[in-house]
Amino acid sequence: MKNIAIVLSGSGVYDGAEIHEATMTMLAIFQAGAKYQCFAPDVDQMHVINHFTGKEMNESRNVLVESARIARGDIKSLDELDMKTFDALIFPGGFGAAKNLCSFAKDGPDCEVDNEVERVVKEAHSAKKPIGALCISPVIITRVLGDVKVTIGTDPETIKAIDKMGGKHETTTHGEVIIDMENLVFTTPCYMLDANIGHIYDGAQAVVKEIMKHA
Amino acid sequence: MKNIAIVLSGSGVYDGAEIHEATMTMLAIFQAGAKYQCFAPDVDQMHVINHFTGKEMNESRNVLVESARIARGDIKSLDELDMKTFDALIFPGGFGAAKNLCSFAKDGPDCEVDNEVERVVKEAHSAKKPIGALCISPVIITRVLGDVKVTIGTDPETIKAIDKMGGKHETTTHGEVIIDMENLVFTTPCYMLDANIGHIYDGAQAVVKEIMKHA
Repeated sequence: MKNIAIVLSGSGVYDGAEIHEATMTMLAIFQAGAKYQCFAPDVDQMHVINHFTGKEMNESRNVLVESARIARGDIKSLDELDMKTFDALIFPGGFGAAKNLCSFAKDGPDCEVDNEVERVVKEAHSAKKPIGALCISPVIITRVLGDVKVTIGTDPETIKAIDKMGGKHETTTHGEVIIDMENLVFTTPCYMLDANIGHIYDGAQAVVKEIMKHA
Repeated sequence: MKNIAIVLSGSGVYDGAEIHEATMTMLAIFQAGAKYQCFAPDVDQMHVINHFTGKEMNESRNVLVESARIARGDIKSLDELDMKTFDALIFPGGFGAAKNLCSFAKDGPDCEVDNEVERVVKEAHSAKKPIGALCISPVIITRVLGDVKVTIGTDPETIKAIDKMGGKHETTTHGEVIIDMENLVFTTPCYMLDANIGHIYDGAQAVVKEIMKHA
């Protein structure tokens, strides 16, 4: 049975992993006959957003601890992830990917990537294991690997940043996957487009299906 | 298009709404061709659990604010829910249902139910609109309505409590729905059984399908 590592970035679209994307990724992996293990970096979130008001809260939360909410406690610190023991790596989206896994939300194309995130992406890439990324997460893959073909949907500013980081962007709509066969990078836009929960199901199913062909 | 009210109880299995159950409920409603609106009571959580360690944290969080994470901000305070404008009512599970929507986790069959939760259950019931409940949530429905037929799976202690509150319990396994046609109450066990994410998808699909027949 193929084993896929999922990297979470908190729990909640505005400061963490997008919950529907993370959950649909788990479901898609299960329905594809594979299994998964969740990981997250043991670091503080960039900030905490009140998801009811949209305003910043005067609180501090830990990415691993909050990600554990989506994983029902079954999660490991990202520094324990050894890509030798996994067949593929996948990143759901949410602002957490651009705030906690790298500094893209603040620094755009000049962003820094969390050391452990960078390490596992490079390990997967050099071992020729598929890497999936949903929503905004392709910016992380582009920042680490440079010359990759990805999609984040249609957002012009993010596309410009991807170009600047050395990536090639292809425009997509709901449920479409951009396949970079040379680098085994598989990306789909999800909530980077104006989407409903059915679109997220479709996107997660589509990207996991492609990953499974090459895992 | 049928419109279903979803009542959340926070965000995270140990102190809030179970995230997979809530997300799969939304997906099932969407896939059944209906729409939904999320609600949650604007009250403090009973407590906050670190989902990585399982230990209580010295923090306080609000049920509506945390539920907004699952709803991507598209949520209303439960006191705004008027069952006249909805076709059905559904409660995903998670300990939040037994900790924040009622005091079942502390008080068992003698639990008190949040006033607004009690109000909307009674409104739905007297208007003969379907009520769905997943996982542990059937204890709320039983505490409010008394003589209803429900399932929480197989847990003997919870079954005893349901009996004591005047309910009739039927044992179920994954994806099965207990239908109380007289009261239009539809229940399924989800994570009250040892379940995987595929079982949660099946359970949510099954209960929403039954609700839609009568909404």
